[in-house]
This record gives sequence, C-alpha cells and structure tokens, in this order.
Amino acid sequence: MLVTITDKVTMDKIVSLAKRRGFVFPASEIYGGIANTYDYGHYGVLLKNNVKGQWWKALLQERDDVVALDSAIIQHPRTWEASGHLAGFTDPLIDCRVCKRRFRADKLEDAVCGQKPSKQPGQGPDCDLTDPREFNLMFKTQIGPVADDGSVAYLRPETAQGIFLNFKQYLQFSRKRPPFGIAQVGKSFRNEITPANFIFRTREFEQMEMEFFVPPDEAEEWHKYWCQTRYDWYVKLGIRPDHLRLRPHDPDELSHYSSATSDVEYLYPGSMDWGELEGIANRGNFDLTQHAEHSRQNLEYVDPSGARYLPHVIEPAGGVDRAALAFLIDAYDEDEIEGETRTVLRLHPALAPVKVAVLPLVRKDGQPELAREIVAGLREQMQAEYDESGAIGKRYRRQDEIGTPWAVTVDHRSLEDQTVTVRDRDSLTQERIPISQLPGELAKRLATPWRSPKLNA
Amino acid sequence: MLVTITDKVTMDKIVSLAKRRGFVFPASEIYGGIANTYDYGHYGVLLKNNVKGQWWKALLQERDDVVALDSAIIQHPRTWEASGHLAGFTDPLIDCRVCKRRFRADKLEDAVCGQKPSKQPGQGPDCDLTDPREFNLMFKTQIGPVADDGSVAYLRPETAQGIFLNFKQYLQFSRKRPPFGIAQVGKSFRNEITPANFIFRTREFEQMEMEFFVPPDEAEEWHKYWCQTRYDWYVKLGIRPDHLRLRPHDPDELSHYSSATSDVEYLYPGSMDWGELEGIANRGNFDLTQHAEHSRQNLEYVDPSGARYLPHVIEPAGGVDRAALAFLIDAYDEDEIEGETRTVLRLHPALAPVKVAVLPLVRKDGQPELAREIVAGLREQMQAEYDESGAIGKRYRRQDEIGTPWAVTVDHRSLEDQTVTVRDRDSLTQERIPISQLPGELAKRLATPWRSPKLNA
Repeated sequence: MLVTITDKVTMDKIVSLAKRRGFVFPASEIYGGIANTYDYGHYGVLLKNNVKGQWWKALLQERDDVVALDSAIIQHPRTWEASGHLAGFTDPLIDCRVCKRRFRADKLEDAVCGQKPSKQPGQGPDCDLTDPREFNLMFKTQIGPVADDGSVAYLRPETAQGIFLNFKQYLQFSRKRPPFGIAQVGKSFRNEITPANFIFRTREFEQMEMEFFVPPDEAEEWHKYWCQTRYDWYVKLGIRPDHLRLRPHDPDELSHYSSATSDVEYLYPGSMDWGELEGIANRGNFDLTQHAEHSRQNLEYVDPSGARYLPHVIEPAGGVDRAALAFLIDAYDEDEIEGETRTVLRLHPALAPVKVAVLPLVRKDGQPELAREIVAGLREQMQAEYDESGAIGKRYRRQDEIGTPWAVTVDHRSLEDQTVTVRDRDSLTQERIPISQLPGELAKRLATPWRSPKLNA
Repeated sequence: MLVTITDKVTMDKIVSLAKRRGFVFPASEIYGGIANTYDYGHYGVLLKNNVKGQWWKALLQERDDVVALDSAIIQHPRTWEASGHLAGFTDPLIDCRVCKRRFRADKLEDAVCGQKPSKQPGQGPDCDLTDPREFNLMFKTQIGPVADDGSVAYLRPETAQGIFLNFKQYLQFSRKRPPFGIAQVGKSFRNEITPANFIFRTREFEQMEMEFFVPPDEAEEWHKYWCQTRYDWYVKLGIRPDHLRLRPHDPDELSHYSSATSDVEYLYPGSMDWGELEGIANRGNFDLTQHAEHSRQNLEYVDPSGARYLPHVIEPAGGVDRAALAFLIDAYDEDEIEGETRTVLRLHPALAPVKVAVLPLVRKDGQPELAREIVAGLREQMQAEYDESGAIGKRYRRQDEIGTPWAVTVDHRSLEDQTVTVRDRDSLTQERIPISQLPGELAKRLATPWRSPKLNA
C-alpha cells in the first residue's frame, strides 16, 4: 500500500460523530437493536438525498442518453430463476453442534469459536462442525394470505434485474436506442450472515445502479468510459484521488458472465483498508439472454439498418450508504482554532446537509429578529439553519461539525448598515457583504466548482 | 355530490397515457405480471422525485420545526407487538371450499362468486363458505439463515413506527423540543387481498409521513393547523380546490386511539369518486405509551419548567403514489389546436418531469447544432430535452402530453440574431427572446407562483 491516511480520522470517530449529531445510528435501539441495521437521522437524510440528487443529476439531467426507472422491490419470482439468484446466490454455511453458532465456510479464518474466542471454529477441543450447506441470501416472503408454494416471493437482492425485465418496454416508449442507459435508485436486501463495518455492509441497503445497453462491438470501449466517468464523479464531489483507485478484478474474481469488472475502491481508515464503493461490470448479454429464454420473448434490438442483436451491458452499480460513508470519512478533519481542537466536515457544498447557518452575534438588540428575517429569505433557495443558543464560537463549531460551508453572522453593525459577515468553514475568512446581496453571493458560491482544501495540504 | 368533473379525463385515459409514455406500467410483464404491482418509468420517476422534493421542501427547507428520518424497513419485531399491528392489523377472510376463492368478509358485497360471476359469494347454489378468519396484513420474513421463531421479522406496514422508536434519541440530538415534527419518506408493504384502482392501492407503496409532537393541551389546535396546511400544499401544487375536500372521520370510523382524523380527499374520476390522499390524525399519546410500556423506557419529555409529559402526536400521512396519481389526473386535459385534439398535462412547473424542450425548427442549416448548444447550457440548471425528430407540431404535442411547460424553438432567425421563441404549454403564446436571456427567463418563470389555467375556465 503506497498511500497512507494522514488524517486524524478513524472509524470510531465517524461512528461517534454520526450518532452524536444524528447522521446515522443503530435502529430499534429501544428494543435492544436489530443486528447491523441502521436508521438515518436528520443530517443523514439530507446528506443521502444530496448524494442521490447528484447521481441523478450526473446521469439524467446532464446527459441525454440515460433514462430512469423505479421498479418494485417484490418482482415476479421467476425473475430470480432467470437471473440465477435462486440457484446460485448462496453462502456456504457451517454449524457447530456444540456452541450452536453458524459460520461462513469460506470465511472460517475470520470467525471465532463460540466457546474459545481465541480459536477459530473447528480448533476448539469441543467443536463439532457440520459439512457446509448452501443458504440462499434472498429474503423470502409470501404474497397473498395463503402460505403455499405458489405465493412465495423474494425481496430483490439487487435493483439491476428490474431494469432487464423492462428493457423491451423501454425500447418502445423511451425513444432511446443503444447506446443508452436505464438507471435506478432503491433499496435491496441480502440476508448476509456477516454484515459488518457500520453502514459498509448491511442487510438492507440502497443502490444506485445503471444498465447501459450497447452494440456488442462497443462494449469494451464503453466499459472503459464508464469506469473513468464514475471514478471522476467521486473526485468531483470531493474524494481525494489518492484515496480512490480503479481496481480491475483478477480473472478468478470475475463472475462467470462478466468479461471485465473494475471496482472504484476507497481507502477506508484502519483495518478496513481498500473497500468497494462501486463496481463497473461488463456483463455481456448474459442477463438479456437469460430473460429471453425464461420468458420466451425476443429481447433483440433491431437497429435502423435492420441488424438484430442482444445488446451488451455495462453496469455501474454503486451503494448510496457506502458513498455517504466515504464522503463523511474523507471530509472528516480536525484542526486547531484559538488553542482548541475543532472537528470539521470538509464536505463538498453540494453534499453538505445544511448550506448556510444564520447566527445573531448576541441574543438582543434586534439581532435575532434580523437574523430570522434573513434565514426566512434564504429558505426558499436552500437548506438553512438559525441558531441563537450559546457563544458564537460554539455555534460555529456546531456547524463545522456537520459540514455547513457558510455561516452568516448578524452583529450590531448589521442593524446600522444592513451588512452581515459570511464566514467560510474551510478558509475561516469572514467577508462583509450587504444583506441584499446575500442570496446572489451564496448562489454564486454554490455554483463555483469546489476543490477540497485538503488537496492543498 | 355537488361537484362534477367536467374534464375529459377518465381512469382509462390516465392508465393508457401512463403506459404509452412510460410514467407507470405493470411490473414483471415479461413473466405475465405480478398482481397489482407497478413499475415507474422515466417520466414517472421524475414526477415522483418532484412530488417528494416538494414535500421535503415544504416540511424541512421552508420551516425549522421539522427534522428528517430514514428508518429501516425491517425493524425489531417487538415494534409491531407494541404498535398493535401483530395482533390487530388483520383482514377477516372467508374461503369458498368449492371455487377455492378467498374473499374479504367485510366486503362480500363487492366480491364475485368464482362460479357465477353475476352473484355474490354465498349466493351461488354451490357456494360453501368458511367462517371468517383473521389474516395479518404484514409481510413476514426471516432474518439470518435459520427459519425459527427467533428470526421472524416483518416488512413495515407503515413508516410511522420507525419515528416513535427514535423519539427519545431525537430529543437528545436534534436540538428540537415540542412542538416539533419528525418526517420520513419511504416504502411500506401491506399484503392486501384486494388492492385495486391502478396505483391507488398497491401492496408495495411509498409514504410521506410526519409525526408532530406537541404538548397535550395544544393537540387540538395543531391538528387543525396541519389539516389546513396539508390541504393547502395540494392546492399550491395545482390541484383544483373543487376536486379536494377535508373530510372529518365519523366517530365510528376513528381508530380507537385517535380523537380526531380528517382525510384530504380527491375527487377521482368515474366510480372511484372521493378517495383518500392523506390522513391527518390526532393520535394522542397512544404510540409513545405503547412503546414506553413494551420497552420499559421512559419516553416522557421534560420541558424547561421541569414538567414531564408524553407528547401528543399529530400525524399527516400521505401517499407518494396517490399524490402522483392525483396530480396526473387533475392535470389531464384535452383541447383542440388547428382542428386536432391535443392531450396536455397542465402540471405545476415544479412537478413537471421535464421543464423545457429545445427544438430546432428544421433539421438543417445549423439549427440542430445551435439547439444542442442551448440545451447543453440549460442542463446544469434543470431537466431539459432535445428533440429533432418529426414535424414541429408533433414535437410540441409530445411535450404537451408529458406536461413540459415550455418549448424553446430554434429557427432560421435564431442563427441570424441569436434569439429563440419560448412557447407556453397552456397559453400557447410564443415569445421571442435573446438566447443569452433564456436561463434567467426560465428561472424567473419557474420561481413565479403558478395558477392552473383550468381555474379560469
């Protein structure tokens, strides 16, 4: 590993900040929690909405070769026969008849014996392990009130298959033809036995996936294009390039249907090391072939010259939760102001949950009233907060900790000449400007391309 | 019924338009579909994103007494014991031993005998009905690979309970105190035996819910406030007031824990008549009492004077799918242009999937190039489409049908003097303006309060 993280960030600090300020925290805590399940609080929802908003913006708004889909979580069960998930989306599990624990057979070396935590399963004197058995990772349920075989259904383990099911309809009504993409954001569910690392791997997670359909002979070129384009998206939104890499899968890592897959990986702190943010796979025509066969429908595209083919597919598949986590980690910083340590999230302004805080310097002399008037005026335009409680330095720190890029302070002079100061989270500069220019100035700053101050360090 | 729908809208026309243009259509169609499940296509996703965006904007961005939550779909199973769903969220079902059909005992008069479709179940000569049995509407699944009682879990039937579970945490980290609200948008699941009416009632649906926590003696006043505020939201976004009503529940309709509930109802076309868009309930302290008891935690709020109480709760609970459907129906119109019938969605510009289309009058003389340059410049700012295929009239109709408020046309004069015409979907006026002023002009129009032209009719 050539790169080391020089920041003061650790996963513990991120988990603690996330809980303290209500970004994300364990779910169902009043009932003792539910393993590896998290709820997102106020700032977490705003952050995730911004991440998803930027993904849609990059794919839908700024281009004209991608269209959107929102398919149901519970699709027809034959979907998962065709996709191969019903037969093959399994983990090999081993039981210990003594300690009653269950382990992944392929990850025994990371597991701990239920009776001798210093040993691996199978190495304790009383261990009695079964042979590995395959367990499907899809959550099963029943549709309709009768629990018979005909009513079995599954929660989707990925959003991708909903896209393939609708490929033919999109050829009809979307007015697009290859090369074009269908993109979707939504929840998926995997009944993993070893979810871990905070929100990096959870049973319930949110995906941002696109299937980009291309003529077969253009697949390799488009795969390269999407690897670079998706990598650039993370950089543009503030992840430092030396914490990001594009790692091509080794031949033995590749799914049987994929001719090439590259992961955008992020350098997580501590023992997590490099971990996947997004996989960009060249899936060939595997999925369309499978669904054509199982549905007995012709899913071929007929191009204007009359040539027929099953398009090949490039799939950039990212995780909303993983992206949000990486943005939080990469933004985390500590510095010193007036002898005190400051925690600050140097988030890209487009991702910051709150864009501006409006603070009266003191809680009297008409300052709160003027500050409230200003914040009311800004609310039409952006997420803004008003805060009057505590010393001004403490209020700045509160905003720094959630990554608010600008703080507007109303002081005694504001009442006299209708000006305020705008404090910058990163440079700590304070600029005095007329209140009337504030909406324009903030809009201008939001529209300006952003560069992490950590890149200058 | 005093009000009649004078529009030419019918549910059939909406379903047909929704499918033809890819707003929303039956899911899993290549496998024969899955009962009452729908997928949203490109324009449907954009419309739903705009509906949710406007809800968040009204609750989070424009006020400072509401915070956001995104809680997991699979919560701790004890949640549903405490909430009463496990015991009481049931439908009474009756089987016919002859035709093997299953019916809701409380809706037999709407059901049809499996052998004699002209009769109700129980009225056919061979009908042999069982006694009613209670079936729970929650989808059941298992967490972890072992299917035993300890691993049973449920897909949430409402987003509300996730909010109550986190009430205590929000008191700690949200820096809010009653009166304040916690809002959430997300999927819920109900295993209904008779879902119906397109996307009005489906097994999987998206909710926009808020729990607004208030001092007990202010509950009645806040209930009135939220009834009016939520009603006004639909009106502001373009639903005509004579198609909307606030209907207080009769005493025998009220849930046992609710002292008052009013529904915002929409006048759907045809036999659907008035149907619920959103319910605004005064739930008292029922939920917090239940969760305090089941979790043995004290969920009381201590106010600054030291008084302790369980807040009462006002719950505005709306459906994203129902709202999207109502906006589509209310916007649907047909008029006549040059002797031809035009279908047009008179959507509020904030809800319109596409804000502007840029069209070269002819496909030569540099017009396509200039039009592409213009659309590229607008894409940073808003959802824009470029279309060069077919006669200009046909392209206008295409945009009218999906509700695009403005069409920019590039013609021969545009190349000479750098001006374009802006066509208004509703007034059909064409205004010529310099290309350089286009972004500002469109931003101004988007920010202008909108009034449905149907209100003038």
